[in-house]
Parts: sequence; structure tokens; C-alpha cells
Amino acid sequence: MKYVYRFSEGNSSMADLLGGKGANLADMAQLGLPVPPGFTITTEACRDYYRHDRQLPNGLWDEIRNLVGEVERTLGRPFGSVDTPLLISVRSGSRYSMPGMMDTILNLGLNDETVEGLARETGDRRFALDSYRRFVQMFAKVALHLDHEPFEEALAEARQRCSATSDAELDEDSVDWAVLRFQEIAGQAGDGSFPSDPWEQLRLAVLAVLDSWNNRRAIAYRRHHNIPDNLGTAVTIQAMVFGNRGWDSGTGVAFSRNPATGERSLYGEYLANAQGEDIVSGARTPKPIEELANDMPKLHWELTAASELLERHHRDLQDIEFTIESGKLYILQTRSAKRTAAAAVKAAVDMADEGMIERSEALCRVPAADLAQLLLPRFQEAAKRQALAEGRLLGRGLNASPGAATGRVVFDADAAASAAGSEPTILVRRETSAEDIHGIIAAAAVLTGRGGVTSHAAVVTRGMGKPAVVGCTDLHIDPARRRMSANGIDIDEGDIVSVDGFTGEVFTGAIETVSPNVAANVELSQLLAWADEVPRRLGVRANADTPADARQALSLGAEGIGLCRTEHMFFQRERLPFVRAMLTAARDVSEMERAVEEAQHDLEEARGEARAAIQERLRSAEERLAGSPQAQQFREALDRLAQHQRQDFAEILRAMDGRPVTIRLLDAPLHEFLPPFEDLLQEVAVLRATGADANTLTEKESMLETAKALHETNPMMGHRGCRLGLTYPDIYEMQVRAIVEAACQLGKEGLKPRPEIMIPMVVDAAELHALKARLQHLTREFEACTDEPAPIHFGTMIELPRAALTAGELAPEVDFFSFGSNDLTQMTFGFSRDDAEEKFLSFYLSQRLLSANPFNTLDEAGVGRLITIAAEEGRRANPKLQLGLCGEHGGDPASIRFCHRAGLDYVSCSPLRVPIARLATAQAALGNGQREDV
Amino acid sequence: MKYVYRFSEGNSSMADLLGGKGANLADMAQLGLPVPPGFTITTEACRDYYRHDRQLPNGLWDEIRNLVGEVERTLGRPFGSVDTPLLISVRSGSRYSMPGMMDTILNLGLNDETVEGLARETGDRRFALDSYRRFVQMFAKVALHLDHEPFEEALAEARQRCSATSDAELDEDSVDWAVLRFQEIAGQAGDGSFPSDPWEQLRLAVLAVLDSWNNRRAIAYRRHHNIPDNLGTAVTIQAMVFGNRGWDSGTGVAFSRNPATGERSLYGEYLANAQGEDIVSGARTPKPIEELANDMPKLHWELTAASELLERHHRDLQDIEFTIESGKLYILQTRSAKRTAAAAVKAAVDMADEGMIERSEALCRVPAADLAQLLLPRFQEAAKRQALAEGRLLGRGLNASPGAATGRVVFDADAAASAAGSEPTILVRRETSAEDIHGIIAAAAVLTGRGGVTSHAAVVTRGMGKPAVVGCTDLHIDPARRRMSANGIDIDEGDIVSVDGFTGEVFTGAIETVSPNVAANVELSQLLAWADEVPRRLGVRANADTPADARQALSLGAEGIGLCRTEHMFFQRERLPFVRAMLTAARDVSEMERAVEEAQHDLEEARGEARAAIQERLRSAEERLAGSPQAQQFREALDRLAQHQRQDFAEILRAMDGRPVTIRLLDAPLHEFLPPFEDLLQEVAVLRATGADANTLTEKESMLETAKALHETNPMMGHRGCRLGLTYPDIYEMQVRAIVEAACQLGKEGLKPRPEIMIPMVVDAAELHALKARLQHLTREFEACTDEPAPIHFGTMIELPRAALTAGELAPEVDFFSFGSNDLTQMTFGFSRDDAEEKFLSFYLSQRLLSANPFNTLDEAGVGRLITIAAEEGRRANPKLQLGLCGEHGGDPASIRFCHRAGLDYVSCSPLRVPIARLATAQAALGNGQREDV
Repeated sequence: MKYVYRFSEGNSSMADLLGGKGANLADMAQLGLPVPPGFTITTEACRDYYRHDRQLPNGLWDEIRNLVGEVERTLGRPFGSVDTPLLISVRSGSRYSMPGMMDTILNLGLNDETVEGLARETGDRRFALDSYRRFVQMFAKVALHLDHEPFEEALAEARQRCSATSDAELDEDSVDWAVLRFQEIAGQAGDGSFPSDPWEQLRLAVLAVLDSWNNRRAIAYRRHHNIPDNLGTAVTIQAMVFGNRGWDSGTGVAFSRNPATGERSLYGEYLANAQGEDIVSGARTPKPIEELANDMPKLHWELTAASELLERHHRDLQDIEFTIESGKLYILQTRSAKRTAAAAVKAAVDMADEGMIERSEALCRVPAADLAQLLLPRFQEAAKRQALAEGRLLGRGLNASPGAATGRVVFDADAAASAAGSEPTILVRRETSAEDIHGIIAAAAVLTGRGGVTSHAAVVTRGMGKPAVVGCTDLHIDPARRRMSANGIDIDEGDIVSVDGFTGEVFTGAIETVSPNVAANVELSQLLAWADEVPRRLGVRANADTPADARQALSLGAEGIGLCRTEHMFFQRERLPFVRAMLTAARDVSEMERAVEEAQHDLEEARGEARAAIQERLRSAEERLAGSPQAQQFREALDRLAQHQRQDFAEILRAMDGRPVTIRLLDAPLHEFLPPFEDLLQEVAVLRATGADANTLTEKESMLETAKALHETNPMMGHRGCRLGLTYPDIYEMQVRAIVEAACQLGKEGLKPRPEIMIPMVVDAAELHALKARLQHLTREFEACTDEPAPIHFGTMIELPRAALTAGELAPEVDFFSFGSNDLTQMTFGFSRDDAEEKFLSFYLSQRLLSANPFNTLDEAGVGRLITIAAEEGRRANPKLQLGLCGEHGGDPASIRFCHRAGLDYVSCSPLRVPIARLATAQAALGNGQREDV
Repeated sequence: MKYVYRFSEGNSSMADLLGGKGANLADMAQLGLPVPPGFTITTEACRDYYRHDRQLPNGLWDEIRNLVGEVERTLGRPFGSVDTPLLISVRSGSRYSMPGMMDTILNLGLNDETVEGLARETGDRRFALDSYRRFVQMFAKVALHLDHEPFEEALAEARQRCSATSDAELDEDSVDWAVLRFQEIAGQAGDGSFPSDPWEQLRLAVLAVLDSWNNRRAIAYRRHHNIPDNLGTAVTIQAMVFGNRGWDSGTGVAFSRNPATGERSLYGEYLANAQGEDIVSGARTPKPIEELANDMPKLHWELTAASELLERHHRDLQDIEFTIESGKLYILQTRSAKRTAAAAVKAAVDMADEGMIERSEALCRVPAADLAQLLLPRFQEAAKRQALAEGRLLGRGLNASPGAATGRVVFDADAAASAAGSEPTILVRRETSAEDIHGIIAAAAVLTGRGGVTSHAAVVTRGMGKPAVVGCTDLHIDPARRRMSANGIDIDEGDIVSVDGFTGEVFTGAIETVSPNVAANVELSQLLAWADEVPRRLGVRANADTPADARQALSLGAEGIGLCRTEHMFFQRERLPFVRAMLTAARDVSEMERAVEEAQHDLEEARGEARAAIQERLRSAEERLAGSPQAQQFREALDRLAQHQRQDFAEILRAMDGRPVTIRLLDAPLHEFLPPFEDLLQEVAVLRATGADANTLTEKESMLETAKALHETNPMMGHRGCRLGLTYPDIYEMQVRAIVEAACQLGKEGLKPRPEIMIPMVVDAAELHALKARLQHLTREFEACTDEPAPIHFGTMIELPRAALTAGELAPEVDFFSFGSNDLTQMTFGFSRDDAEEKFLSFYLSQRLLSANPFNTLDEAGVGRLITIAAEEGRRANPKLQLGLCGEHGGDPASIRFCHRAGLDYVSCSPLRVPIARLATAQAALGNGQREDV
């Protein structure tokens, strides 16, 4: 097993084995760039180290000594020499960049003897001592795990001794004093055996760097970024070059383009007479790289040339570390630069325009999920920094829905709704429920004290593209007194707060926001246009329940509406009384209707005299139904709702003229339309106990009775969707009539409405069959009233495991399947979205019991397998079947890649995620976009 | 297409095509038994009839006329002849016996002319007129759909005219009068065209019989018995023989053995001078068949011989219809007899002992589900009839759990528990919850006003084998006033009622019960012993939570315990305070524990001086934990529970010595251990509103806080099972320690305890991995303290779709899977068992949207598919994996057949269903037991 590679043996494709740093150093050495000589210990050696209880693999140490020998011979500097000592750096570097997470040791090889040799050789004893001081401090911290405080204190004392304002200004004596003091500290604090033998230093440094793969920072970083724990780090050992050799030396970082904006020009900073950690520590302020052109014009030119060479070579924006030693440039590292979404878009489009990369490559260079940053209002950075500086941070919660907003605090939905149109409000609730929906619609942002990123507030606001911070446990919310407090600050209703949905921060007072404009972003528009040109399998639709959402979706490039939920139309405040009136009467009415239907059925069969008796029965059942006050209440409520629905549908279909609009028939659990059961229970109990007046009590009791009748232990698995449509058939019939009437109205205006009707919560083909028998004839009118008569498509949600498992039987009944991946995830895992986050899901994620939140990223092993089964067997049974996905996963790039592989026809996501989905679907079609999160 | 078969062309294997009746008539004709000549129209003709909008298939009528012609020639009697008229019967008969559901017409071919011919020919005008009167009445009802009342009235008047007490005693004149009157009624009521042409009569009769396949009675019967709607009926046309030809004629039904007891002797009844409908109508009381031996000894001998021949030929108990015409015996039908479970068992065992059938055949002759009748107390039939006659029926609900009990009414669980041991109680609740469990345990039966057959009361009582009637909406229950009323009767607490869980009936007052004894039932014991001898794949275990259950299961033949739920141990009343104390503290304690663990982990990694700081942090975290009152409360509660659990486990393991006992770690949603959230809400609201004293309020508020913290929107999908075990690890550790200590104690006594540990609610291998890391080392002690050291098996429930879909990853972590088919059904369908029945499931079943209740009979298309996937992929990944099923389906024969096909190793069911499962598993192994429900 070969554990060590010379730079001449590696190349940039060997990052798995040599880490990103090692592979790129080898690459640069072979490109002829000025790289100090060295070699890299492989990640395989690191994995072996951990497999064998932190023992170095057999033979590794001999290989290291051997290759250090080669560096000694190349440079003519023996390691540990008291005349011309070789100094080396020992650096970590894994397959994926984990900046600052693992350890590195510089200037290794110095001791009380070799430091004097270096002083003699360079004629610069201050430099030699400065390097020694740095080495002792770094080695003590990294290899001996000593506290860094005493060293910092000693250094401060040294600066005081010679009135220096920075370490670079320390005179020789003060550095000398600091070295002695450092040795004292290290000797006292450690076990007294700070190693002076350079080889022992090297051995301990290698162990320390290997160990740093599993320090807490590194583990946490990997968890956050989904990097596997078993990759290991490489260790690069390289001859030192010295940026601290004097004022014609220095060190810095350069980007081949601006990583914040994407502009094409060398960007970065440098610091004269310094080593890398001086920049990182922030003790001295580096200069912009432009000044290097004045200070050392030749070196600036060389650096620019190297930067352009590396960008062309890697065909991507580069992040380059360099050191200047006595007027000579060395490149110490290059890697693809981390960049903002804006920079990623601009650099990718520019590079394609420059001919450096193909358009398809440009598309794959932008992590699709990052586009979210470009689509939402954000706080101005400077204004936010100032708010932080002024101590205006109230608390931090979960960044449930991105965006930023400032507004007046309101503590209930009604207050938010009243203020709508006048000024922005922030709706603050302990937690939200369906009852708050009109307030959420009206508010500029939502803030809750409880709940996780899949709580009601989080899910609803994300769907609306409205900022939300949830589970902000720092807040003490007292809705009764209409105030909250946090961080020692009291906030009353009407006070102004600012909510940052990107970060989860909540501030008191206003913060200025900046609003992006997609159309005005030339490069983004260009990139998305290229994405649309890719011959991709997946179309992109939007989930939109209102005409405003539909228009926004269209402007962001949606090809249709994949999910138009009708229950939100029911939730609207002025409609709730009708919904409640309808629900109160529905059960009685449906029983009366069933009696009529049975009599009609019997009559068809009967012959002779028996008909008379049945006719009498039918007449009496019809009379009972006609004369029933419940039936009248039910019909009136239904008529009112039909008017509203017709108008809603007409507006949405108008907005999406010519494009498909998939309308889901009512799906919400019925109790969501009533005041919360718990509230009613308490109110009635109190009214009874306190002897309230009879009328109030009776009214509340009657509402409680209805709520009780509709109450369910597990409403998520209850009387919803098509179960409702079958037991109370009038509701679905009303909805289908409203759709058809709206479409006909538009058809008469010469528009091309394309409604599709979707049936939710199906588990068996019999349900579809029965509902189609009731509903399909209602759509005939549509064919008659449009120019191009085509039947309205019927489809079903696949959101319960049994639907997926019996897809072959469902498919012949319908024109399309739409995977409701939210509910499908709930049922497949047995996770209640309303409860899981807070109770155990966040614990599961922190303990790595699940690698990702399955409500954000589609679980391929379980949910994905069901989708694959349903897609394959559905298509087999009905080759014309259209397949879409309309859960929140439709806007998640990783999930979109899965949908592509599963052979779906489209994804549907919230309007603001449509650009993300356009890019991600193109990337999926290009077979790219893997691991974009790292 | 051949639509008509002569008797000489058919045989008993052609029941699909000729119906049971037609096939057996053909068979008997060929055996040489005295069968009147005739032929059968096929079920295919019936299906064709319905496919073509109720038109007779082309050519059918010609075929019918042709074969009637053959009968005319055989008998020398032309159809419609005025001298020797042929009379015929037109009978329905489908593949599956549907007794009385479809129609039949006898004596067809009579009109005003032919009746006189018949009179002349037989010299018995009274007989001819009697036949004619029967024909008119039957044809009017069946073919013309006329009301039967006026005919009955006319007949009563005729009897009055001649002072006859029965129709058989009517004199010729009165019969003549009746015929005229019947013709008048038929003429008035119908459209006046009662057909006199025999061929037209025949055509209408065939249509009427075909139509009767889809009358409401037949449809309802098929729904109830799961018979497909598309089979169709055959129509048999046969020459009439006349039991009404005089006092040497008659008709009757004979069984080859007693269908109530299984005793071997001709059993049945007959009526002289009568046709079949005289027996059915109940107007005259038939004589026991024994009297035929006196009345007509030769015929009795002939009938006995025919009965024995048919039983030997069909190798099964036969139900035979016969007619005697003028001293000559004719056999008109034979079929396998419906019989009681007792008769089925005795007949099967006797026939095997007689050598008539193999033992394996005997096993397949008894519908396994019917054994339930033999295992439970029932009301004495006579006593119940009397109660009905006395108007003591209070109401009818759903027969949720079989059995019968009489006891004093109590309206809450505490009252039931207080009365325990003194006298039997009937617990009456609007509905039950986990809070009532101690009352359910104590009560003799449970009666609820709400809920379906899968409600809490139903599921729990079935598990306990205790009778229950649920959803008895006739009852008005007022627990506050401690009374209920129904059927005009008021029942106060303490009054006696009787509950019949077999039928759903509820009576006021006591009814005597009879208790069966399995061991005393020689034939049943014999049959089950044979079942155990079958080399069957499936073992049979029992679900048992208490030592008493375990002992009962053992006595009924269980080979082990497949599911020992530990939460019922927690529910016990004296333990609830400790459970609540534990839950109140668990979250805080687990957070403190996690802080200690993190510090320990950090310490392992740290080197040098940093260790000191971490050690300090660890010390302080440990101190905080040690000094915390919550931790103390938690530990104390846990210790108390550990004592109880250790004792519970020891007793169960002792009862099942040497047999496996699968113990499921705690699984119930936590809120079930607290007083109902709704009650607390109301109590606190009232206390606040009425200004109660501070202490009471504070205590209730604190309990409400805990309840709120544990409250979940969908508890079924919430913080349960291993999710709890992972977040609050002490609870599972306590349970595993209790299991190991109990087992060790028994081991020291020389017993052979075989505990298995089962982890519930798993969705991912990571959960199993993490829990095994915590729990497995705790079981090492067991290996040390028993003679034959074998590790305790670990297994997982497969009760969530994702567990089934990732079985290949779970299997290597465990020794066994146990399919929790109840929860798996809930999640696969998205049906909440607590809600579905009442809200929509009963509607679904009545509308045939589902063919069976998936909580009773395993749904093969969805749930079964998941089980098959998990079984195959689990075994592939771990060939030693044991597979069991422990949902309620484990006691359902159809589901057991599925388990057999899916390759499972055992089923586990409630103790009382163990005999059923023993028989059903043997039947499955013998490849039989299909459609046993018909």
C-alpha cells in the first residue's frame, strides 16, 4: 500500500486520495507554477489510522522520512541542520473543503539550535526568532492541546515592552523574550517535554493533523454539510516559504473573480511581512490586492497571470493562497472559490459568454438551491450590523421560511387582518393553526415561540414565500396581555420588530430591506433562459391557491399550476360561517339524501303493484329532505361557497390562460374549519360554571357539539379528502360545477382554460370509480362550451402508501397521478408533521439517526421507493398517464434529481422556488448537480 | 355458445356453470337416484343477460323449448296439454348457496284448461286446483311483483269458509273459490294480463329468476358473505313432482347427520300433503323425520339409503330436499349442509374416524373462524328467546367482541374496579380511552354508545377476550346522573343488564350463560391435536400481557408469546402516579444526562491542559444532574416501575417456561398515561373562572403543563416507541434490566426463560443500531446466569411502511421481525383506527368501496405487499431472520393463509383465538381453507 505521493506523482483528479489541497498542489507543480517542494500522505493512511485505534500504518513513517530526505536534497537543506535547516509545514486537507475546521502546523523543524542556524544563514535573527515563536505557539496549541490564552498574553506583553502596535513591529529582543516566555508556558502547562527533535516534532504534528479529522468542529461541520465521516483527511508536508522574512515578503489570498459579485478582476487581500495566521487572526488589517500593483508591480502581474492560468485550467473561479518570500512569489493552494449566489450566477454566465465553459457547464456551476437568496427581500447588511451593534437582537429561532420583513407586532390573526393594507404587521403567536390563516395572509412575516421548521406556521409561510421565524424560545409571549419580552426588552402590540427568515434572527426596531428583482438580474434571466432550453424531462409548475400566487408563478416561469388547494379558499374569514353552516348540516343531509337514492334504486327494480309503495316511500323521503331546515341551511351555504369558488377558479384560470391548472378538491380535515375544540371546551365549561346567560351558552354548546362530532384523535389520518367527497357528495359536486362554470365563462371570452381535477387521499380504485361516476358527467358541459372540445382531465393524488402500492389499479381510472410527497412522507415514516419536529425529529437529525429531514429532502429509500413503484406500475397500466410531484420536495434540488430519475413529467413547487426548480430540472437533465451542497 | 345442459350432460364439478343445485341434480341423476327429468340454463347465460341490458341471449329460448320437448317425450306429457299436462319448476341456483335470497316458481304450466286436464288425469280435482292456486300466488309474487298480502287474506277467508285450520285441509270447493279469488286479485293488481299460455309463463318465469340475482336481498347477502356480484345464477327447469297429491305424498328436508350437534343419524323434518313452501312459510308445523319411519317405513329406508349414498359420494354432511308423490320418493336437491361449529367439528372428526375422509380433509372441513363460537360463554338460547319475548331488549350495537355476560351497570372505570372480586359489572361508557383500562380489566363486559368495531373499547376487549357491544346508539347515556335509557327503559347504576357480544344485543335483567370447556370437547381436542401434527410452516403464539393471559394461552395450545405489551403494565392504577412522575421529569433529566455525556465524549478526545477545563465541566454537569430534584423524582419513579416490571416479567416467563416470550419495549403515546388533555383544560378553566384555592389550581395547572408538553396533534404518528426509547434512554434501559433480572432469577431456579426483546416504531436501521448500542450489553448478564448461555434475541416491529421498505437494512441488525399489522394497516391506508370506523369506514364497507375491513382481514394488495417485500428482502439480508405477525390479523384465518404464503414463521393472536390459529395454520399448510366463509 502506497501511503505517500510526491507532488510529481499526483494530479487534480486525485482529490479523494490526496485531499483537495494535496491534489491541487501536485497539479500546480506540474503546471510549472512556483510551488515549494513537498508530498502528501493519503486519506487512505488516515482511514487506516482510525481503523487501527489511532496507530500510524506500518511503513508510513519510513516513507515520510524518505520523502523528507528528497526535499532536503532538492533544496540542499537538511532537516534539523544547525546551518541551513529545512523548515516544513504540515497541513490537513480532505476531499471536501472544510475551511478552518482541521489543523495545520507551520515552521516545523525549529529548536534552540536550528533557530540560530536560520538566523545566521538569513542574517535576520528577528525573522528566525519570529518563526520560532510562531512554531512554539502553534505546536503547543495543535499538537499539545494547550490553552492559547497565556501565549496571547505573553505576546501582548512583548508588544508593550517595545511599544509595538502589531506583532510585525516587534523588535528582535522582544521576539527573543517572547520565545523564552512561550517555552516557559509550554513547559509549565504541558508535561514538560516540548519536543526539540525535529523528527519527533514532525511525528507529533502528523498525529495531530490526523486527529483533527475527528475534532468536534470538524464533526459538526460534516454533519451540517452532509459530508461522510469515513473519508479521512490527507496530510501535506511541504517546505516552508516565509512571508514574514521582511517588508519585501508577505502573504495573501486572491480570487480570480470577485466572489461576492462575480465581477472579472483579481480580487483579494494581502499582508506584508506576515504568515497566513496573521490574516486569519485579524490582528492586522490586510490591504486590498490592488495595492500590491503599486507595492510590487511585477509580483502583482505574476499573481494575475497565475490566477488566470489556474482559472482557465480549472474552468472555474479560483481561491488562491500565495506567499511572497523576499520578492519571490509562491502559490501555496488553489481551490474552487466559495461564492455568493449572485457571484455564482454572474461568473457562470460570463464564463460561458467568454467561451471558457459550455452553457451546459454554466448551468451546473450554480447550486440551484442558492437561487433562493436572489429571490427574496433581505436586510441591508450594514443596517443589520448596526442593529446587532446596538444590542437590538431580541432572540434567535429557526429560519423556517426565508425573506426579511419589518412591521408592527400583532398578537392575533384578526389584528393582522384589520391592519392589512394600511401598514405591515408581524404576526406573533405561540404557535399557529389553520384558524390563523387570514392573519398569516395579511401579515408581512410570522414569528412563533413554539414549533419546528415543519410546524404549521413554517409550512404555510414557506408555501406563501413569506418570511417566518419559528420556535423562537427566547421569546416570552403573553397574548392575553398583548406583549412579549426577550433579551430584557419588552415589546407591546404595535411596537416595531424585524424578522430575518434567512438567519432566524429577530430584532427590535426597523431594519432597511433590499428587494431583488429577477427580471432586472440580467445574468439570472440569462441562466434561466438557458435552463429552459435544455431538453429536460421535468416540467416546472407552481403550487398556487390564489390569483396573485398564480400571476407571480407565471412571472417566475411556471408552466402551469400543479396544485391549487381549494381549502384555503374555504378558510377565508368571510366564508368560514358558510363552511361551518354546511358542516353542521352535512351529516343529516347526506343521510336524508341516501334515503332518497335508495328509494329511487328500489323503484328501478320494482315491478307491478309494489312500485306504488316504493313511490310513496320516495315521495316521503323527498319531502323530508325538501322540508328539512338543515337541508335548506346546507344548500344556502353551499350556494354561497359555490359563488366564491367559481370566482376564485375563474381568476386563477384567467391568470394561467392556456396552461394546465390542477385543482385539488377539498382535502383539509373538517375540524380545521371550526374554532379549536380545546377553546370551545374551556369556554363552555366556564360558561356553565359561572352561570352565563342561556343564549350564549346554547350557541356555544351547539358549536361544541359540531366540533365534537368532527373531532378526531388523529385528524391527519381521518375524515379527509375523497373520504369526505364520498360521504358528503354535494361538496365535491359543488366544486366541480364551480370549476366547469368558471372554465366555460372564460371559454366564452375566447380564453383557453385548462383545468384538471385532482382527487385527494385515495387508497383504492373503487373510490376513484365511485367519484368519477358522480363527477365526470358534470364536466361534459365544458366540452360543449369551448372551441376545442377536450375532456377535463381527472387525476389522483398519490399520498398514501396504499395508493402507491396499488397504482396499477388506480392508473386506468385517471389521466394523471400527482405525488403528494408531504403526506406520503408522513405516512411512510409514521411522522406527524405537526408534532415530529419539536418532539423528536430535531433530536434525530442532531444525532444523525436520519441523514436529512425527510420533509425537506425526499427520502429515497422509503418514500422514493413507493414513488418509483407507483410510477412504473401506473405507466404500465396506463401508458398515457402523466406523473407529477406537488409536495414541498418539488422545490428541492436533490428531490428534483430523484424525480428526474424516477421518470416523472413535472414537479410543482411554491412560486418563489420556480426559478430554483427550472435550474435544478435542467441540471438533472444534464446529469449533474450532485453534492452541490458542499 | 351452449347455454343449456341436460342433467345427463352435467356433473358435480360444474357448479360454476350450472350452480350448486343444477350440478348436483345432474350428478344425482347419473348416480341413479330418483330425480325428475330436467335441464339447467347456465350462469354464463345469466351473465350474458346482464351484459346485454337484460335481454335473453340469442338462441337460448329455442334451446329451452327444445329441451322442454325432450322432457315432454320422456314423460309422455306435453307442456300445455289439456289431457296430461307437463308441469315444471323453474329454480334459481348459483355457485354459492344463497338460501332463500333468489326466486323459484313451481307448478308452472297450469291455466284454466290444463288444470282441468290434470284433475281428470289424476282423478283428484282438489289436488289440481291446489297446485293451480299455488302457481297463481307464486307467479304473481315472483314474476309480476304483486303484493302477497291480498293472497294471504283470500286464503284465510277460504280456510274460514270450510273451517279448515291449515291449507292442507281446504276442501275442493274452497280451493276452487281461492283460485278464482286469486285470479281476480292478480287481474286487478297487475296490468290485467296474467299469462295463460304456458310458454309465456315459462318465459316470464325464467326472466324473473334471472332478475332475482340482483334483488336487494341477494345483493345484501352477497355483500355480507363476500360473494362476487358478477357470478350470476343458473336456472334449473325440471318436471314437477307433487308432495300435495294427497296424504301418501309429502315433502321434507333431511340431513345426513345432525347439523346442530354432528351426531350420526338421519335428521330433518317432513310435511305430508304439502309442497316445499308450506314448510318455509311456517303455516303448518312439520314432523320430525323419525316419524316417517312409522308413517312410511319403506320410504324412510329409501331416504336413509339415499342420504348415506350422497354423504359417501360427496364425503360431507348433506342437506337433502325430497318429495314423495303418491308413495314414490324423489330427491330434488342435495348440498353440503350448513352446520354449527360444534357439528362441523364432530362430523369432521367422526368421518375421519369412520375412514370416510382423511384427517387432513377433516381439518379442512371446519371453518377455523367458527371455532370462536366454541370458546366463549354464550347466552342460553331459551333464556334469550324468553328475554326477547318479554320485551327486555334495550338496543342493538356492533358485536365488537364476542362472548356474553350479565352484570351490574357501572358508569366509570373506578366503580368497575371497586366492585372487582365481589360481583360482575358491565362498564357502560359513551366511549372508552386508555384511562378506563383498569375498569375494562375489572368489568365482565363493556358497552359503549359511540365508536366502531375498531374503537378503543372494541380493540382492547377483543385482546382480552371479553365481551363488548360498542356504538350502541340506541342508548342515551348520562354518566353525570349515573343512568342511561333505551327503548323506553331507564337503567340506573347498579341495575342488571346482559350483553351479547356475538350479536350486539343488550338486554335488561339477567340471562343465563353457558360456558364451554375446550378440554372437555373431545372432538375439538382431537381436531386440534391433528392440526398440530400437520407439518405446518406457521407456528402459533399468543399476545399476552399478563401472567393470567399467558397461562390461558398455554392451555389453549400457544407455543410462545409473540407480543407481550409492556404499556398495559404501566397503565395499572397504582403505577400511574409513578409513570406520571417519570414523564414530568424525563425531558429535563435527559437534557442533563446529555450534557454529562457530551463532556465525557469531549474528555476522551482532549489532550494536555484542556482536559482540566473539560473535567471541570463534566464535574459540574454531573453535580447538576445529581442534585436535581427532577432527577431524583425520575430515578425514584423509575425504580418503582422497575420493581413492578421485574415481577410482571418473572411471572410471565415462569408461566411460559421454555417457550419464547417476545417483550415489546414501551410503545404507547405518552399522553395516554396522563388524564385526558381535554378534561384538564376544562377543569383548569373552571378553577380559574371560579377563583378556586391556589393550591388546587397550581397542582392542576402543573399537570396541564405536562399534558400540554406531551400533547400531539396526531399521537398515533407521534413520540412513541423507539422514538421515546432514544430521546429518554433510561426508560428502555430500565425495561431491559428488568427483563434480564427476571430471567436470571428464574434461571437460578432451574427454569428456562426465553425472553426476546422487541423494539417498536422503527423506520431506520440507525435507530436499531443506536438502541442496540445502549441496550445489548445489559443482556450479557443473562448469558452469565443461565445454564445454556444463549444471547437474548433482539428484534423489531415492522409496523411502519418505511420499515418494510428498508427491511434489507434492518434485518442484519436483528434476530427477528414481527409485523405489527394493526399499525401497518393504519399507515398504509392513512386510516386512524380510533376515528375511521365511525367517520367513514362503515360507510365504505356498506358501499363496497372496500371489500373487507382491513383491520379484520389483512389487505393483501397494500399491507400484504409491504409484508412480502419485507419478508423477502429481510431474509435475503439475514437468512437466519425469524418472521412473525402479531397484529389482530394473527387470529384471522384469511390473513393466516396470507402469512403462510408470505413465508412467515409464526402468527401471534389473542389467547382465545389460539385454537382458531392452530387450525387455520394447519389448513394453510394443507393448501386449503379458501372461501370458507361461504
